[in-house]
Amino acid sequence: MDTRTSPHRERIATTQRALARHGLAALLVPSADPHLSEYLPEHWQGRQWLSGFSGSMGTLVVTRDKAALFADSRYWVQAEAELAGSGIALVKIPTATASHHIEWLARELKAGDGVAVDGAVLGLAAAQQLRAALDRAGATLRTDLDLLADVWPERPALPAAPVYEHRAPEAPLPRAAKLAQVREAMARHGATHHLVSTVDDVAWALNLRGADVEYNPVFLAHLLIAPSGATLFVGAGKVDAALKAALAADGIALAPYADAATALAALPTGATLLVDPKRVTLGLRERVKGPVIEAINPSTLLKSRKSDAEAAFIREAMRQDGAAMCEFYAWFEAALGKERITELTIDERLGAARARRPGFAGLSFSTIAGFNANGAMPHYRATPQSHAVIEGDGLLLIDSGGQYLGGTTDITRVWPIGSVGAAHKRDYTLVLKGTMALSRTVFPRGTLSPMLDAIARAPLWEQRLEYGHGTGHGVGYFLNVHEGPQSISKAAPDAHMAMEPGMVTSIEPGLYRPGQWGIRIENLVLNVPAGASEFGEFLAFETLTLCPIDTRLVERSLLRADEIDWLNAYHATVRERIEPLVTGAALDWLRERTAPI
Amino acid sequence: MDTRTSPHRERIATTQRALARHGLAALLVPSADPHLSEYLPEHWQGRQWLSGFSGSMGTLVVTRDKAALFADSRYWVQAEAELAGSGIALVKIPTATASHHIEWLARELKAGDGVAVDGAVLGLAAAQQLRAALDRAGATLRTDLDLLADVWPERPALPAAPVYEHRAPEAPLPRAAKLAQVREAMARHGATHHLVSTVDDVAWALNLRGADVEYNPVFLAHLLIAPSGATLFVGAGKVDAALKAALAADGIALAPYADAATALAALPTGATLLVDPKRVTLGLRERVKGPVIEAINPSTLLKSRKSDAEAAFIREAMRQDGAAMCEFYAWFEAALGKERITELTIDERLGAARARRPGFAGLSFSTIAGFNANGAMPHYRATPQSHAVIEGDGLLLIDSGGQYLGGTTDITRVWPIGSVGAAHKRDYTLVLKGTMALSRTVFPRGTLSPMLDAIARAPLWEQRLEYGHGTGHGVGYFLNVHEGPQSISKAAPDAHMAMEPGMVTSIEPGLYRPGQWGIRIENLVLNVPAGASEFGEFLAFETLTLCPIDTRLVERSLLRADEIDWLNAYHATVRERIEPLVTGAALDWLRERTAPI
Repeated sequence: MDTRTSPHRERIATTQRALARHGLAALLVPSADPHLSEYLPEHWQGRQWLSGFSGSMGTLVVTRDKAALFADSRYWVQAEAELAGSGIALVKIPTATASHHIEWLARELKAGDGVAVDGAVLGLAAAQQLRAALDRAGATLRTDLDLLADVWPERPALPAAPVYEHRAPEAPLPRAAKLAQVREAMARHGATHHLVSTVDDVAWALNLRGADVEYNPVFLAHLLIAPSGATLFVGAGKVDAALKAALAADGIALAPYADAATALAALPTGATLLVDPKRVTLGLRERVKGPVIEAINPSTLLKSRKSDAEAAFIREAMRQDGAAMCEFYAWFEAALGKERITELTIDERLGAARARRPGFAGLSFSTIAGFNANGAMPHYRATPQSHAVIEGDGLLLIDSGGQYLGGTTDITRVWPIGSVGAAHKRDYTLVLKGTMALSRTVFPRGTLSPMLDAIARAPLWEQRLEYGHGTGHGVGYFLNVHEGPQSISKAAPDAHMAMEPGMVTSIEPGLYRPGQWGIRIENLVLNVPAGASEFGEFLAFETLTLCPIDTRLVERSLLRADEIDWLNAYHATVRERIEPLVTGAALDWLRERTAPI
Repeated sequence: MDTRTSPHRERIATTQRALARHGLAALLVPSADPHLSEYLPEHWQGRQWLSGFSGSMGTLVVTRDKAALFADSRYWVQAEAELAGSGIALVKIPTATASHHIEWLARELKAGDGVAVDGAVLGLAAAQQLRAALDRAGATLRTDLDLLADVWPERPALPAAPVYEHRAPEAPLPRAAKLAQVREAMARHGATHHLVSTVDDVAWALNLRGADVEYNPVFLAHLLIAPSGATLFVGAGKVDAALKAALAADGIALAPYADAATALAALPTGATLLVDPKRVTLGLRERVKGPVIEAINPSTLLKSRKSDAEAAFIREAMRQDGAAMCEFYAWFEAALGKERITELTIDERLGAARARRPGFAGLSFSTIAGFNANGAMPHYRATPQSHAVIEGDGLLLIDSGGQYLGGTTDITRVWPIGSVGAAHKRDYTLVLKGTMALSRTVFPRGTLSPMLDAIARAPLWEQRLEYGHGTGHGVGYFLNVHEGPQSISKAAPDAHMAMEPGMVTSIEPGLYRPGQWGIRIENLVLNVPAGASEFGEFLAFETLTLCPIDTRLVERSLLRADEIDWLNAYHATVRERIEPLVTGAALDWLRERTAPI
């Protein structure tokens, strides 16, 4: 690429001229929106527009004479390619949560300098950390300025998809009952009011869904819960008259999306507001004049614990999802070598198989289908410009999932293509040992989820192998495929990560050999009671995901007898539960791939 | 006991009168001294003197009309007995690190109240937490007052044991080289000066030892390290002329123990002081006027990583310690049923066996010998007034350790007495599975030690069993038997808990059936390199402790083949390494107890 032609070089220069106009030393552009979502509507993809880097996580810092993008190891290859010619330096950081950009920025500043960040998209916790660093450097923070508005002429509008109801029976608990639970928690904290800014919390609390964010059935809104009644701040025209009336009947009034800040500034005398410092922006927090109690959103805890009724719907969604997988794989194995199949074909065909299933509402994330070296990139996504044809020998990794009215799925499997060698099988079997070891673990209720991480890694560590991502994330109920508070990972444990009955989490150890192949074997599991003793209550994982784990790749000599028993029992369950839903080639494939080893 | 006769009731009343005289609402007495040591000289055992509670951890709060002692589950039985008649309420808290006493105190206070804590024994981190809670309650903190001085007429003097050198070859690195390492770390932090208050850090840095604290070969002192030279603040008469001259030759001057605070207030212009907020008191910190950098004591990290030369001495100390155990157990098994043996006899005999070993310098902690129900109390200590006779049937738990010039030991074993049942053997074997599982774990260098905790617990969890203490603690080198920074436990991991080569840690899962029996199987392990791959460097545990693990209690059907192999290989090593050191009955016993199963 001719470095002169990068539009991003010019955009950075324009930004630097805007900085000079405002007398500022630097601009910080986080990957964030007013709801601190993981996936951002285009309107808030300013970091991508300015830099060209399209990864989902990364921070851009523009100073008077420099620009730097901070990204973790998942994105290094991609970022190097996308930043080429932009003049923007890539700073490689170890993890997405690191604060290297703050330290870097602090070193670039001199006393008296001003740094701009749009307070409307800056998390409160992040703001506190940033402010402390700037204080030490003698610099000041300006959060009242959206510099992007100056430099981004064709900035996309806010999404305008309609909001709809998530109804019974799949939404078993009416919104009035959910709001009552939230108000109970508010009262325990001594709060009269509560602002909810995270869109999945808003959607959960009101049994509403939307389509403003790709793959996540959410809509842009803030919710202000008062002692009686609540106000939903949502874009004009997104809620139709019938829904508006239904909400009004439950005491929920509508207000313009942009009015949340004003409403916070106008809380009645005597109001005490509960906000979650990790789930609210500085811009909103700063508008509150009265007393504030900081605590985790009650809805974040409540929605993480799926009810028995919800768990029953999830089990059914898993059967449907498993049946879709069988149909897809039966086609795939029959077609392989006969027609041209690429990573993109897989995405299309697998999506179509899911779409034929009852209750299907969309994909839960962008399908990752990576053949050989592409599978070694945990966040790989095939594009029309760049994708592999499935031919020859090797390993095909497919990580995919669906949104159903009765649950959200997320599954990774690896399949042998052509002939595979001993090294492939050894890696695969070691990852499988990790998946099985954690899936079988019994643990005390209240165990902090990060403490379980090592159990999945130990079989890999024993062979001096390791993977760079977490072992598991929480999963929503017809909501975000990534939701907290629990996380089976090296994350710093806090009390909110305690394992409780009803939580749904992924178990997905992996192994990645750059340039060669990648392996990940992922199931979703449900925390279920496993008995009590004088030592307390215990939980076990019920494996929810129902799909064969390829046994042709298993190196049997690496498995213990109890591991072989677990695998055969799992396959017996998969066969029994999915058989009634498939016929013909899909049924044959299911029976073959669930045969005991 | 007649509740009128408790001296503690009168001491609390005296304290409450002193509070009134000073116009204060409450006094907080932590278990702490100016060095934030785990074990306190009597001079600072004010909490015990006031309340009668003799446990090593616990906080006393005295208000105008109440007194409450906060203790964790290890101490509940003991505290109830010791507090009887004192009028002091026992508040049972889940863990020693909990801040329940602060919350309790805050509820008792009204705006404007004053709370006294002796700032000289209040850790900086604890002070910050306390101050925040009092701020919220509108109360104020007074730290310039030592109320104990008012109410404790016969307060014991400071200990006056002499300080001596830890010499080569057991101390392989001269103090000048250690101070150079510390200064290097200070420079990296941008500090010119560094105050060390923790007594094991002082002892390590200067290759000095003392006897001011029972079982820990340390002495009361603060060390102020300057760019060149250092000042040791130590009691008059504890350092003789020869040692004083040797220290002076290394640039270390002596100053009175009480002068540390004054010296901090008089740091030269341009000085930047490094202090560890977890390892310095508020009283000292507040004296500093110039810039301060807060970071972990460099010596805490340095001393946790034993050098190859130190590891060689530790291996030899373990052989001697193991030989002492063989001699003791050979006598014990022969004498059992023939002479009267109590828990106290065990302490005496085992101590005497250790004392005959070359390099022995003392015990590393108070021996825990607990028969049956006494073994179910993890911190049990037999006393002349209350101890069991070893007779009949059951389990005997012995947790003991020695200080040697070349290392510190800590070992727990459990032995069958008379005939034991299937329940004993099942519990024992499950704990052993935990000890073995973690002992065999390979893990990436830098793994945060708390993340390994679940691996030892998983075999117990599987059977709905659990233990209430940590799995492992760091161990000093002829120093404190408990030292940081690593900890294999449910502690919140921080970056300083990263596993590095040379660290020595205990692995000691357990199981306690109150009123019945207790089991704990403890070895010390060394972090050793275990190879590197494209995924990084890996570490394994070398088991340092050399002593048979009783196999009569093993329920073989609960062990996998690889577990039996590990146990037999361990016993082969124990036999091979200890055989040359023992003769006669001890040798016979060693051979019998290390026979393969």
